[in-house]
Amino acid sequence: MPLQFNEYYNELTGLTVGIKKLLFSEQSQYQLVEVYETDTWGNLLTIDGLVMLSERDEFVYHEMLTHVGLFTHPHPEKVLIIGGGDGGSAREVLRHRSVEVVDMVEIDKTVVDASKRFLPDVGDFSNPKLNVIYEDGIKFVNRVENQYDVIIIDGSDPVGPAAGLFEKEFHELCYGALKENGVLTAQTESPWVKSYHPGIKKVYKVLNELYNESYMYMCSIPLYPTGLWSMMCASKGEGPLSESALNRVEKGITELRALNYYNSDIHKSAFALPEFVKNILA
Amino acid sequence: MPLQFNEYYNELTGLTVGIKKLLFSEQSQYQLVEVYETDTWGNLLTIDGLVMLSERDEFVYHEMLTHVGLFTHPHPEKVLIIGGGDGGSAREVLRHRSVEVVDMVEIDKTVVDASKRFLPDVGDFSNPKLNVIYEDGIKFVNRVENQYDVIIIDGSDPVGPAAGLFEKEFHELCYGALKENGVLTAQTESPWVKSYHPGIKKVYKVLNELYNESYMYMCSIPLYPTGLWSMMCASKGEGPLSESALNRVEKGITELRALNYYNSDIHKSAFALPEFVKNILA
Repeated sequence: MPLQFNEYYNELTGLTVGIKKLLFSEQSQYQLVEVYETDTWGNLLTIDGLVMLSERDEFVYHEMLTHVGLFTHPHPEKVLIIGGGDGGSAREVLRHRSVEVVDMVEIDKTVVDASKRFLPDVGDFSNPKLNVIYEDGIKFVNRVENQYDVIIIDGSDPVGPAAGLFEKEFHELCYGALKENGVLTAQTESPWVKSYHPGIKKVYKVLNELYNESYMYMCSIPLYPTGLWSMMCASKGEGPLSESALNRVEKGITELRALNYYNSDIHKSAFALPEFVKNILA
Repeated sequence: MPLQFNEYYNELTGLTVGIKKLLFSEQSQYQLVEVYETDTWGNLLTIDGLVMLSERDEFVYHEMLTHVGLFTHPHPEKVLIIGGGDGGSAREVLRHRSVEVVDMVEIDKTVVDASKRFLPDVGDFSNPKLNVIYEDGIKFVNRVENQYDVIIIDGSDPVGPAAGLFEKEFHELCYGALKENGVLTAQTESPWVKSYHPGIKKVYKVLNELYNESYMYMCSIPLYPTGLWSMMCASKGEGPLSESALNRVEKGITELRALNYYNSDIHKSAFALPEFVKNILA
């Protein structure tokens, strides 16, 4: 009897992944954390039955969520990651030589422990520049002000503990936690899934109100619902498509080893939105 | 008992679509043609168990396969479509005012008949500029020379009757069937699926050898395996990113009604390839 993991985004339409075995399953204080060994995508981390990453496709999500924002900032030294318990975003951030400190605020230690054990190549937890803080990201940003150059919102889908990450109040706190010229990036779900439209619009609107520059951008992630994923990039200073940001991409990209998705053409082109996506935001 | 259509691209990993009912199923002379009513994607056309299109997402594929090539040509009047039995590519081509004749060469009348009946909004079969020819596309291009401005290869996956569309000999015949300044576009599968790499590389190489300009470009199609799809555009004259082509996009796009995916930013950005895709072509 073959095993399959299914994630449905519309009634009974979705993704099905061939499973060799369940490696880990724990109902934490916050959510159900599971790791599967898959047929062709390496190990797969799920939370409450939703795909977080597979070892084979995680590079798209993590490269796109981090490098777009890091290169938008003129000189990122101190970076905050909200969520990101698998360690993939921190790994990509730490590739930037200017970065001195990464604070990763993950609500659920179970995600970090499972990732260290079953996704050992995703994170870079032994890096001395990385501080892992087990706390609710919303409470954390409520206590800090004017401290970070870049904030990366690497939360789960807007149900369960990550729902607050799509709220106006949270983004106001993030704005306050950023220093001058601060840059924020966030994952904001698939534009094909109608139930996510209210969350997408809410984040787009609040970033537009708060920041000097704000944009949605896109990437293609095979194990996320519909394959098309949206992210947002907002900046207190120069935008991600400014001449100086594009110059930093061109110069800085050579110091990042082994990129599998992101490059300077992708940086620019990711901001081109299909018509139906523009219509959601209009 | 809920019904689901599954298409696996890697062992047991793939797509699952919730089905309300099977509307049509016929084993034609060439292949198994089926139409399902789905839960949230409208009607779904499959051939030999592989998704061809759903009513809700077909606009991505058809807009991207046609407009990129049509705007690359300085003045497309006569267009050949190989395959495309559902009529979606012809519909998009016929939106260009310069186009006088579209010859659609579809091997399987069953596909056209099923599409007319169950996908009535996809095709525009009553348009007097459209000639539907029931013949093997490879045999057809073998008999024509120097006749078309644009050729669109809208075939199924490279198994079954469409396998020949990924061969060098077929592309040499297409080159011969194109007039001076002729442009060709072709669908070339997902770069995430390793079994398609040989076909992708073969088409990329032969187009590069034959044409003055040739490129791969990408789009995001939720009901195709992995969601990320590759297409190619080759031109005897100016390329798709030439200044004059980009000017034609800017000017011509207003005459195309109701675009849902394609726009001038998408035209340019589609040619930015992720690193792992570049590595396949290298």
